[in-house]
Amino acid sequence: MENHRGSVTAGKAIRCKAAVSRNPGEALVIEEIEVEPPKSWEVRVKILCTSLCHSDITFWKMSTGPFAIFPRIFGHEAVGVVESVGEHVKEVQEGDLVLPVFHPHCRECRDCKSQKGNGCSVFGYRLNPDMPRDATSRFKGMNGEVLHHFLFVSSFTEYTVVDVAHVVKISSEIPVDKACLLSCGVSTGIGAAWKVADIEGGSTVAIFGLGAVGLAVAEGARLRGASKIIGVDLNPEKFEIGKTFGVTDFINPATCGEKKVSEVIKEMTDGGADYCFECIGLASLMEDAFNSNREGWGKTVILGVEKHGTPLALNTYLLLRGRSVTGCLFGGFKPKSDIPLLAEKYLDKVKKHSCLCLLITCSVHKFAS
Amino acid sequence: MENHRGSVTAGKAIRCKAAVSRNPGEALVIEEIEVEPPKSWEVRVKILCTSLCHSDITFWKMSTGPFAIFPRIFGHEAVGVVESVGEHVKEVQEGDLVLPVFHPHCRECRDCKSQKGNGCSVFGYRLNPDMPRDATSRFKGMNGEVLHHFLFVSSFTEYTVVDVAHVVKISSEIPVDKACLLSCGVSTGIGAAWKVADIEGGSTVAIFGLGAVGLAVAEGARLRGASKIIGVDLNPEKFEIGKTFGVTDFINPATCGEKKVSEVIKEMTDGGADYCFECIGLASLMEDAFNSNREGWGKTVILGVEKHGTPLALNTYLLLRGRSVTGCLFGGFKPKSDIPLLAEKYLDKVKKHSCLCLLITCSVHKFAS
Repeated sequence: MENHRGSVTAGKAIRCKAAVSRNPGEALVIEEIEVEPPKSWEVRVKILCTSLCHSDITFWKMSTGPFAIFPRIFGHEAVGVVESVGEHVKEVQEGDLVLPVFHPHCRECRDCKSQKGNGCSVFGYRLNPDMPRDATSRFKGMNGEVLHHFLFVSSFTEYTVVDVAHVVKISSEIPVDKACLLSCGVSTGIGAAWKVADIEGGSTVAIFGLGAVGLAVAEGARLRGASKIIGVDLNPEKFEIGKTFGVTDFINPATCGEKKVSEVIKEMTDGGADYCFECIGLASLMEDAFNSNREGWGKTVILGVEKHGTPLALNTYLLLRGRSVTGCLFGGFKPKSDIPLLAEKYLDKVKKHSCLCLLITCSVHKFAS
Repeated sequence: MENHRGSVTAGKAIRCKAAVSRNPGEALVIEEIEVEPPKSWEVRVKILCTSLCHSDITFWKMSTGPFAIFPRIFGHEAVGVVESVGEHVKEVQEGDLVLPVFHPHCRECRDCKSQKGNGCSVFGYRLNPDMPRDATSRFKGMNGEVLHHFLFVSSFTEYTVVDVAHVVKISSEIPVDKACLLSCGVSTGIGAAWKVADIEGGSTVAIFGLGAVGLAVAEGARLRGASKIIGVDLNPEKFEIGKTFGVTDFINPATCGEKKVSEVIKEMTDGGADYCFECIGLASLMEDAFNSNREGWGKTVILGVEKHGTPLALNTYLLLRGRSVTGCLFGGFKPKSDIPLLAEKYLDKVKKHSCLCLLITCSVHKFAS
């Protein structure tokens, strides 16, 4: 058996730089921190590339409530290489390319073993953002103060420690600036289109919000052969970006006048879209999405995390006529089984010298936004 | 070709008795009325047996709004025999045993041809309750006044006229007092369990409201092998009735004290029921049902017609964790293809001399309630 702890740093604390968030809404500070070695079932990862997800900003702005935990290290969409592993970790070893993912996958619980959802009943969501098994942090400031984790990942640091339930090994062939997007936004959007909505050829689709997640939904819908993909966004520049991912029609709510967006979508789709996706996180838009669905089988998929805790109000008569609403985290994907497949699809495309638009443009978009 | 209009009454108006509702909430009046002959695509039916569905009562009580239409003839859960048919009707003929059903099925439109839902885009729901093709009534009082239809059926009369899109031919072997229940309540409940929820063996189920529809959901769940079927009802007598249909546990919200029903259900099901059904029509109970669902794949099915038009308020964070809400009319069944199959299942049971509890007890329940 190969020695998993061959690294010279293994077993020792590592001093490195991190972007620390000390107060809500205030600029991150690049500081020197200390990253403890991984305990049992934990993996220490050298971050190679991280991107910014809107959820980082949402939580960064939170100044009250149980999620307003500071100082902390944000970032949860990243790729890295395993520096060392704790006891009992067999799944990955030093040198492996891995994605740390906020969505857990223990592979052993009833939820992980079921084909019906992608929850994990052992490592389900909890208030404490630090290490899931002992609720303590592996980060310290130079003065010894505790720096908290974020979403069990914390990637705005050169080194992080992640539970093995939150680590996915991927092929080392995939470029790191593409791979990191698979750890949150792209998987969420593609998964929602494929696994949760299960879009079929010829369907009509409406996407509220053309950020990275919304564009990934469009790409998922395009790959499934949707006949019409309507993008809804207040930023008119999103249409050009959207076209690359298959968006065929664009609605800017600011220019709809008296007409509701749902009315415009119903006119464009002969009664309502087969699938509507909310990728922003506003209850009012979730309602718009639901109202834009066709009678009979219209399905609304909620991807956005509601920014104000406002409940979603549904007209029950519209529900009764065969509409449904569902929500998902991580696009309904099971990280350890679905991300490697998505990575393979990407590599197949590269090998065939065909369109790389999805990840490249998405990457450009992410850094531009 | 056989003569479809061989009846001596064919082509003429028929005088008969009907229970006319003249004012909201007031006792029905048995009156002599005149039933016109069927026009093209219409079927005149001699009602053999009708039962009372709660929706009759809901609409009977309505004193304001667009659905408060009087005088009218209620009743929409019935069985009858074809007396005569209008031009172009080939599907049924004089003497056929038929169910008039409120839910349309034209078999030709995109919705009827799709396997995804049970809507009908040609005869979808409309405000006018009279004949769907020309929006006129076939009923007259003896003074010539128009008496309106209800839900395109109107079965509280000896004769009614129904569009062929609302008629289902069934085997004449099935006793009429059993058959009539297939035209609304039993189909709605069984369909919701089988077609909409698609309950699988070992599932946990919670049913809010043990009326005819809720009991039929329980029977559907039992036949699918659900491991736990929790009935929620304020009437403690419903548990004994429910047991006959497979209800294994009972919750009376009046005796839960400080504890919410959803908390009790979560305790009984190790985190929440796989499937929850709302069979009453109150937004607050729909919310309770949703909150009683398990994380990951919990599905809430709304069957009740909300009595006050109150919207359903959903916690979006619970949605995001893999729950879904869907509604259906007529249990997602396509009347002309699914009801005959259900009738066959009933007859198979009779032939095998096995348990008839479903329909018989349901029948008893209906007349007792």
